[in-house]
Amino acid sequence: MYKAELWKEENQPSLRNFDERELIDSVNEGLGLRGKIEKIVDQIWKDGFDGIYFIGIGGTYASSMQVEVHTRGKSNLPIFVENAAQFLTTGNKRFTKNSVCILSSVSGNTEEIVRLVERVNEIGGTIFSFIDTPNTVLTQEGRYDYLIVSPKNEQLKFFMVANYLMYKNGDFPNYNKYNEEMEKHLAVALVEVEKAADAWACDFALKKTTNFHERPDLPHYFIGSGNQWGATYSYAMCYWEEQMWIRTKSITCEEFFHGMQEIVEWDTPVTLFIGEDEQRSLGERVARFLPKVCGNYTIIDTKEFKLEGISQENRGTISHLVMRAVNNRVDAYMEHFLRHPLSIRRYYRQFDY
Amino acid sequence: MYKAELWKEENQPSLRNFDERELIDSVNEGLGLRGKIEKIVDQIWKDGFDGIYFIGIGGTYASSMQVEVHTRGKSNLPIFVENAAQFLTTGNKRFTKNSVCILSSVSGNTEEIVRLVERVNEIGGTIFSFIDTPNTVLTQEGRYDYLIVSPKNEQLKFFMVANYLMYKNGDFPNYNKYNEEMEKHLAVALVEVEKAADAWACDFALKKTTNFHERPDLPHYFIGSGNQWGATYSYAMCYWEEQMWIRTKSITCEEFFHGMQEIVEWDTPVTLFIGEDEQRSLGERVARFLPKVCGNYTIIDTKEFKLEGISQENRGTISHLVMRAVNNRVDAYMEHFLRHPLSIRRYYRQFDY
Repeated sequence: MYKAELWKEENQPSLRNFDERELIDSVNEGLGLRGKIEKIVDQIWKDGFDGIYFIGIGGTYASSMQVEVHTRGKSNLPIFVENAAQFLTTGNKRFTKNSVCILSSVSGNTEEIVRLVERVNEIGGTIFSFIDTPNTVLTQEGRYDYLIVSPKNEQLKFFMVANYLMYKNGDFPNYNKYNEEMEKHLAVALVEVEKAADAWACDFALKKTTNFHERPDLPHYFIGSGNQWGATYSYAMCYWEEQMWIRTKSITCEEFFHGMQEIVEWDTPVTLFIGEDEQRSLGERVARFLPKVCGNYTIIDTKEFKLEGISQENRGTISHLVMRAVNNRVDAYMEHFLRHPLSIRRYYRQFDY
Repeated sequence: MYKAELWKEENQPSLRNFDERELIDSVNEGLGLRGKIEKIVDQIWKDGFDGIYFIGIGGTYASSMQVEVHTRGKSNLPIFVENAAQFLTTGNKRFTKNSVCILSSVSGNTEEIVRLVERVNEIGGTIFSFIDTPNTVLTQEGRYDYLIVSPKNEQLKFFMVANYLMYKNGDFPNYNKYNEEMEKHLAVALVEVEKAADAWACDFALKKTTNFHERPDLPHYFIGSGNQWGATYSYAMCYWEEQMWIRTKSITCEEFFHGMQEIVEWDTPVTLFIGEDEQRSLGERVARFLPKVCGNYTIIDTKEFKLEGISQENRGTISHLVMRAVNNRVDAYMEHFLRHPLSIRRYYRQFDY
């Protein structure tokens, strides 16, 4: 067996793949879309709607789940999450010409999303698209009612839509103060999370890489709830499986206790994501259980990060972004220790299927 | 290594753990609840409601997902699925005193469900409970508005509620003919599926057991969509993980193509469940992909079973029951080959956590 440890000693870079300026600018660019978003939501509000559906596939489905759970306990607005492929087959009888579909696509040509747009157009519903890449299929006229072309920050964009909808519905009295705080502090707070997590992330990545090298068959388990569930699900599937080709399983904290717990043994690699939203207690329950049966678990708790300038009551709404910042650091070192460029794919978009 | 093959040759029982009469009687007992269910739904309908929420945890959450997807494309009734633990933490602002919670519990004392009932009572919503075990916490007065105590057939019960709601809403014109057909043929059709699948299931269980013995770390992958998703999710987690202690991962067909596909290799054990509801095409896409990258896949397609007396247009509504019948046979032989009584648990309800 080769020695991952040696790689670390010889090559360990400090803050590998880290461009502080770019990260700050990107988050602020995302937050800077608020004016455009509010104008569009004002129009949607004025026109009236019977449902707001965040619809995605893969990573964008995960982001859709995050924004839905963000609103579910705070607002009685009819905000729902849908999977694009399910919408295209089963459909949704409650989705009408008065319904609004909110979607996001990085490539601007994701197959299921292109077909989703056609279907929503047939029904006569409204399409509000966030597309990262200009001059793509989904930025063509007739493919949207409202369009914002801007790279990255998918979750921020979705949450900004939801937050403004909740504000207009009277569910978000501190909306202005909240945005002031985010616009002033969020970008730097997230960059500081990356810096604070970096050394730990390098060690964690080495540990996980070693686990993987020793037992490549063994899945790495990720557990998380609330707005961490989308993070947990997509991190396991869209990062470790898709980009690193490492087996994973993800499960919510509450469902963990109804089956999956039985296959956790003393040396099973388990990572628990704990955030600070309403479902934090579900993560804490797993945190109490794990040490009793497992010696190879890791807990990443967003509470441990400072988040300068973000008030206590607002921390929970960005827990998923904090976790993403931590995992950015993990990914940078996983790529290095695995010697596996995260951009390569075995099958995805490599041939027709 | 011990020889599972020898066990098969020496011990292979025909139709292990199979009581045809008991199976038929049980399904017919479930279907026989229709009169009681309709009477309760009539009252709920008369009182009016702003939402019908099927709420569960673990296996009952899976059944709730199945009934929701069964109605989503057919009816504009406000029928939703919720996870009990999420309802207890995040809550749902749209769930009001005019909302109805439909739940099921085998034990009659599942922790999350007991607390769910308290929470719904606080809100003032209506509780319609199916409890398998008499004289339990959840059958006590004050813990329900409507109660049916009857063992097994959770999915049938949920679907009967949904079907009658859809009938009353004008979404199910063939309701009477449908029930006539089910009441006349379903029980025997399902028993015939078990008989038809038995020899295959024995071989499949031997193959899977051998895979597990050779590479115990390797997860067994289960893929399925539509009303098969609840079956896929709960079969992987509540049967293989919880009852057999075999690692699994379950994923929907549509999401499989957005990450998980990358970790399928030539010898990865993958089982695809294909049903006959609106999402069948999503399963067929996976069926086209798998053979190109994997030589250790199995497809279980409900279409291959006769289902005497069930019309073509109704087959899709019972695909999950057909799959359950097939898997009953698989489980019987897995238990034998693994020498692992399915009733034992490492941790579940063994100590406080």
